[in-house]
Amino acid sequence: MSILDICKSAKSASIYMAGLSTAVKNQALSQIAKSLQSNSEKILQANRQDMEQAEKDNLGAALLKRLKFDENKLATVITGIESLIEVADPVGDTLAATELDSGLELYKVSCPLGVVGVIFESRPDALVQISTLCLKSGNSVLLKGGSEADKTNTALADVITEAGKKAGLPDGWLGLLHSREDVAQMLGMDEYIDLLIPRGSNEFVRHIMNNTNIPVLGHADGICHVYIDSDADIDMAAAIALDSKCQYVAVCNAAETLLVDEKTADRFLPKIKAKFDEKNVEILGCEKTRKIIDAKPAAEKDWATEYLDYVIAVKMVGGIDEAISHINTYGSGHTDAIVTAEKQKAAKFMDMVDSADVFWNCSTRFSDGYRYGLGAEVGISTNKIHARGPVGMEGLLTYKWKMIGSGQIVEDYSKGQKQFSHKKLDKKFKI
Amino acid sequence: MSILDICKSAKSASIYMAGLSTAVKNQALSQIAKSLQSNSEKILQANRQDMEQAEKDNLGAALLKRLKFDENKLATVITGIESLIEVADPVGDTLAATELDSGLELYKVSCPLGVVGVIFESRPDALVQISTLCLKSGNSVLLKGGSEADKTNTALADVITEAGKKAGLPDGWLGLLHSREDVAQMLGMDEYIDLLIPRGSNEFVRHIMNNTNIPVLGHADGICHVYIDSDADIDMAAAIALDSKCQYVAVCNAAETLLVDEKTADRFLPKIKAKFDEKNVEILGCEKTRKIIDAKPAAEKDWATEYLDYVIAVKMVGGIDEAISHINTYGSGHTDAIVTAEKQKAAKFMDMVDSADVFWNCSTRFSDGYRYGLGAEVGISTNKIHARGPVGMEGLLTYKWKMIGSGQIVEDYSKGQKQFSHKKLDKKFKI
Repeated sequence: MSILDICKSAKSASIYMAGLSTAVKNQALSQIAKSLQSNSEKILQANRQDMEQAEKDNLGAALLKRLKFDENKLATVITGIESLIEVADPVGDTLAATELDSGLELYKVSCPLGVVGVIFESRPDALVQISTLCLKSGNSVLLKGGSEADKTNTALADVITEAGKKAGLPDGWLGLLHSREDVAQMLGMDEYIDLLIPRGSNEFVRHIMNNTNIPVLGHADGICHVYIDSDADIDMAAAIALDSKCQYVAVCNAAETLLVDEKTADRFLPKIKAKFDEKNVEILGCEKTRKIIDAKPAAEKDWATEYLDYVIAVKMVGGIDEAISHINTYGSGHTDAIVTAEKQKAAKFMDMVDSADVFWNCSTRFSDGYRYGLGAEVGISTNKIHARGPVGMEGLLTYKWKMIGSGQIVEDYSKGQKQFSHKKLDKKFKI
Repeated sequence: MSILDICKSAKSASIYMAGLSTAVKNQALSQIAKSLQSNSEKILQANRQDMEQAEKDNLGAALLKRLKFDENKLATVITGIESLIEVADPVGDTLAATELDSGLELYKVSCPLGVVGVIFESRPDALVQISTLCLKSGNSVLLKGGSEADKTNTALADVITEAGKKAGLPDGWLGLLHSREDVAQMLGMDEYIDLLIPRGSNEFVRHIMNNTNIPVLGHADGICHVYIDSDADIDMAAAIALDSKCQYVAVCNAAETLLVDEKTADRFLPKIKAKFDEKNVEILGCEKTRKIIDAKPAAEKDWATEYLDYVIAVKMVGGIDEAISHINTYGSGHTDAIVTAEKQKAAKFMDMVDSADVFWNCSTRFSDGYRYGLGAEVGISTNKIHARGPVGMEGLLTYKWKMIGSGQIVEDYSKGQKQFSHKKLDKKFKI
């Protein structure tokens, strides 16, 4: 099947996916969980082949660990599906209801996006999680995993497709892509694909964003800041700065730049320096910073660099206004925190820092779908359009306006023979 | 000032716009209303110059009517501003609130998009409406009106800018563009502009959509359908079809194609033909239609044509599935209606037709921000991302996540020393 045919087929299927009852979707999820279990040997066998090839190809230990799909991973994804069955159906929620006139009611109702394309890294468990999330939210899904996991992914996709068919899902709701060329073609399929979710390196995500007209949910950079205000509690500030930088350095919500109010620098900088030294964090400081603590000089480019490592850029600022301006100039709109005891400054920071997540007196590392309590995280978005910040299942949804009439025509209202009531209704859409 | 400088200036201003209190925004609106009144002679004089030039240039009567900005129009926009002052501030609404742990609270709060670019037609009143809507929603705005209205628009923009300055708005929050070259440059400013709203012809909107990476709110085509089901009340069906086509033919929510279940065609088609004949509607019918009523033959391209005129394409279908499939193939995702007495068919139609507005037993012409009770209409969107269907002020907003902590760090949760509570809070964000 060509990529075009896979996309067309997913689009056609999406119409039926949108109309599926909760019962059918949950039956399909249950059938998928059962089939994954009963086909475990086939799946694990495919993964052993991928693993052997990856070892032959000398892939790194971290990658091998992510690639491995054993009985534990299988049990985890099956448990995940079982929890997803318990989650309320996100489709068909009434977001607003208005009586336009007697017998003429307007409802804003959540519905699936249609076709979602997801490009993910080597972990084959991601395939199961993403496809079942798309199923529960009534979407068709196009999946492209890491090429080193292709045998595992193919086995998993086959089992899920077969199970779905048994439960009554339409053909083509799940499409698996195999190569980079497939992805390149997919980027041009804006007629058929409603949203792309790329997961991977910054360069990869930026490449996707720059090469498609399809809306993209995601983030390229995570250049997160912690601003230590003159009214900060110094111990709290040091703990938050340390956690934001070091709790897990390789992730998008780790801090890359520390901004320090010059009025607090004398007290704060030596304290954080001692903590950073314990963790072997390399400090790149501005000139003023280097007059107080020992640090390598920071260059202009450091303010716009995501290190994802034990490195931090430190800049002294004249106050909150300079901090806000620095963040809005060099940041990536991801997550930024202020440490201060002064409420008004916190409010100002959170209003004026133009980022998805703005925190007061806590670590940037809290910016995460699980920690937010969103359930499964579809991605973290630095877009302002659609979904922003950590995105749960609502990122796979849109809404439509459903109107129930009883023969009304506009002419009657336009002539003044009838009037609109525009009365807010406290009821759910129901036929 | 170059377009780049205007965009940069709007972006800088947007940071302050986002932090403005409701009181300051309302004072600015009130000052704008006053200044428009006290500068009325200057504005009307500028419009008289535009009108004279337009008459010399032999612009059509419809365009001249739209271009004219007299005392009545001025009074109308001032009344509009006064109502806008009464509207609740849309910024700072708490959309969700969660306690993550004791003393660690997460809020999803509405906020401005940032910089909105609006390209509108000749009506100068649009400039006042759009700029004041952007102000109330805390956005900077870039405006480009029709070139034939340039003197009027410049006068209006000057008065609004001056009044805003007096009330404390930041410099650069309103930028006026003058030429097509300005617009072409603006399309490349995705670093500074968060949303474009083009208003105008289909070709123009499509041109904008195809030539920018900035998200676009709008619609190119409005190919709307009315489907007459076998279970339709024939009189109701005829009234709805007539209103959908003829109540105002030149608009995006007018019907362009009528789909008729073959089981009801014998009864319905002669009835609607008589009504269409009274209004001189030209009928383009499929082969089966032409066996029942007199009509010119419809070609394949007619199913995908927006006539915006007294012309309608009529197709007989085998039932609801063919109707849904036809609409999803040839429609534009705008507004589609079913006429039926059968609830289950209505539900199926509304679930499976992939359009922004799906109606049961009423005219497609109801698809409109005013009729929906949304207040001012920012546009009608056929996107699935951001806002869909008729869009009110919420189209100028996004949200951010605000977290209030008291020194929390992730390490404590990751080590299991603290647990997340994820308790839904019924309170509004407040510092």
